[in-house]
Amino acid sequence: MKNGNSLSTLSQLGKRVAYLRKERHLTQLALSLESGLSKSYISDLERGQRNPTVEVLLRLVKALGVTLEELFGGVVPLEQLIH
Amino acid sequence: MKNGNSLSTLSQLGKRVAYLRKERHLTQLALSLESGLSKSYISDLERGQRNPTVEVLLRLVKALGVTLEELFGGVVPLEQLIH
Repeated sequence: MKNGNSLSTLSQLGKRVAYLRKERHLTQLALSLESGLSKSYISDLERGQRNPTVEVLLRLVKALGVTLEELFGGVVPLEQLIH
Repeated sequence: MKNGNSLSTLSQLGKRVAYLRKERHLTQLALSLESGLSKSYISDLERGQRNPTVEVLLRLVKALGVTLEELFGGVVPLEQLIH
């Protein structure tokens, strides 16, 4: 399932996580400690190299203090941008 | 990770998928065919019994014609409802 579209969406999600993290002045290590996810997982995720489950997303939104809806704000699958 | 909070969020997500599906007058079979996910997966998901990845969510939002942000509209982790 790792086609161009989904990778692109995962990259957008990664950038969004990094944006929200930096907005809160958190390092990757701080977000790791807050979420219970490893620092390397956070690093991979921010580079669009992970395909997280909803339960992993829940750890992130709780650590970042946003809703799932807000986490996906502005994250649009490539196909939906084109059509 | 299947604690009460995350299960509850997965149940909310399941109800949301079912709502969006019915709003489009799609059966579980029709959504299955449109998304490429099995009918039993859709059924489990709508009952909050699955913990989908972002790539699975992408298949659903493309089939339902919504964004990821819209998919999570109104889905709020239990902890965030309480606090």
